[in-house]
Amino acid sequence: MTQFPSKTKALSEIKEYFQQKIRQVDQWLEQLLPTTEQTPATIHEAMRYSTFAGGKRLRPILTIATGEIFGAPEQELLPVACSLEMIHTYSLIHDDLPAMDNDDLRRGMPTCHIKFGEALAILAGDALLTQAFLTLADYSTANAERKVRVLSEIAHAAATTKALIGGQVLDIQFEGKPITGPMLEEIHRAKTGALIRCAVRVGAIIGGASDDDLAALTEYGEKAGLAFQVADDLLDEIATSEELGKTAGKDAASHKATYTALYGLAGARQMADRLCEEAMAAAQRTGKETQLLEAIARFIVERRS
Amino acid sequence: MTQFPSKTKALSEIKEYFQQKIRQVDQWLEQLLPTTEQTPATIHEAMRYSTFAGGKRLRPILTIATGEIFGAPEQELLPVACSLEMIHTYSLIHDDLPAMDNDDLRRGMPTCHIKFGEALAILAGDALLTQAFLTLADYSTANAERKVRVLSEIAHAAATTKALIGGQVLDIQFEGKPITGPMLEEIHRAKTGALIRCAVRVGAIIGGASDDDLAALTEYGEKAGLAFQVADDLLDEIATSEELGKTAGKDAASHKATYTALYGLAGARQMADRLCEEAMAAAQRTGKETQLLEAIARFIVERRS
Repeated sequence: MTQFPSKTKALSEIKEYFQQKIRQVDQWLEQLLPTTEQTPATIHEAMRYSTFAGGKRLRPILTIATGEIFGAPEQELLPVACSLEMIHTYSLIHDDLPAMDNDDLRRGMPTCHIKFGEALAILAGDALLTQAFLTLADYSTANAERKVRVLSEIAHAAATTKALIGGQVLDIQFEGKPITGPMLEEIHRAKTGALIRCAVRVGAIIGGASDDDLAALTEYGEKAGLAFQVADDLLDEIATSEELGKTAGKDAASHKATYTALYGLAGARQMADRLCEEAMAAAQRTGKETQLLEAIARFIVERRS
Repeated sequence: MTQFPSKTKALSEIKEYFQQKIRQVDQWLEQLLPTTEQTPATIHEAMRYSTFAGGKRLRPILTIATGEIFGAPEQELLPVACSLEMIHTYSLIHDDLPAMDNDDLRRGMPTCHIKFGEALAILAGDALLTQAFLTLADYSTANAERKVRVLSEIAHAAATTKALIGGQVLDIQFEGKPITGPMLEEIHRAKTGALIRCAVRVGAIIGGASDDDLAALTEYGEKAGLAFQVADDLLDEIATSEELGKTAGKDAASHKATYTALYGLAGARQMADRLCEEAMAAAQRTGKETQLLEAIARFIVERRS
């Protein structure tokens, strides 16, 4: 690390920014989710359990950091950012189900279905997805035109075609089967990439970015999204379960297609670094104050969990 | 039947209207759902399998029939009506899952998870819910303000508090337990009532109904929704599995709380008829041409499947 002092500094700065934004996002999520005083209490407990299980809040932070570049107001960014976290959390709850990845551990805690049973976990996922759209309709302070545009962006990113659900379908279908690099990229562009790309785009849209800036930031989001997945595969290989908060080495054990399986540790590390550089270059094309976005890209590939 | 010639006539008329509207709704759903040419094909097959499994299309028809009273344009009503059918279908797919009601048969066909496996059934439900909001954002021809209002109404009806998901949670929690009449009503107001009420309300909102008319039609929707559930319980007791297209007598066998268990066959029949009358009276309060809505209320309690 000593030969990259500037990188190290940026990493500590970005961590401080993350901490602050995580607190803010959590405060909003606290307000936006139904309380456990409301009937039926159990479903709201399950929704909150998984939402407040210590996520990195990467998607909300990307929306906020992108919006702030263009001076977008917090009141408009936060509900949209939180709706993305609700969708991300729903996707994790459903992915962890016995019929899917069958994971018992997530972020160091029992998964939703282990804690609340399968029926309630399915419904908690459904409820978080629904609450995301409810939040977009009711709590964003955008004008109606922008609300609809943002909502459309998010719905497309969460749907089946080159999007969240479609990525999970492909991931399941290719489990244990031989896979090519382009196919692996297609899966991850959909499964993790679409929502990360969308998080950046809606931030830019709320900020009123020009078409050129939106295109540059979309590329930033796409590269950052892929970098995130490559880094995830690297972490799965090299980190311990304790560091990850989930079962390490599980992908290899279940014959999941990963970047490390396909390109080796060194190849995947190179790929992550290259994608990070490309993301930063794309952000810089806007000519705006994108240091924070660049630092986030670096955080994505250098994180330890 | 011979002593109610007017009722019989209305029933045949309403069936013809239903047939026509079902065709129209199906044509729109055909366009609004992703095709099986799009990747990943299997998820789109599963979404379409359950959507085109021969549903009554009650919710879309209620939206269309209510909107038409106020002269709302078809182009605006149909996508909204279809989004309600997508949400209804998603809820059936998830309710049928092994972790929930564990049903093998729906509308006379194998349920989604029997046909496509559990993982794909969960994802097909997720995808239909997402596609519903995507449809509301992209395909409704309403102005943006009305789009957001309709979307908010639908999100609330599909959520957890006095709404679709909450009703399913309560239904599961009370299975096999002693239940009171008011509690049973709370479950069904949420589980089936909220979406039926919403279907009527969004039709009225798209039609630009006055506050008084909206209130009257909301009451119509609430009564019709409860009548639907009472009639469902009656059918579960008296119809054959072949007529129902699902396993008859299953509710009693699984110790589900039903209106027939609580009030007996005659009591439940009286209740359905009373709710139907109250629904018709509420619709008439608008002073508009509500014969069709009244006939639908009657169809709801007189249907044989």
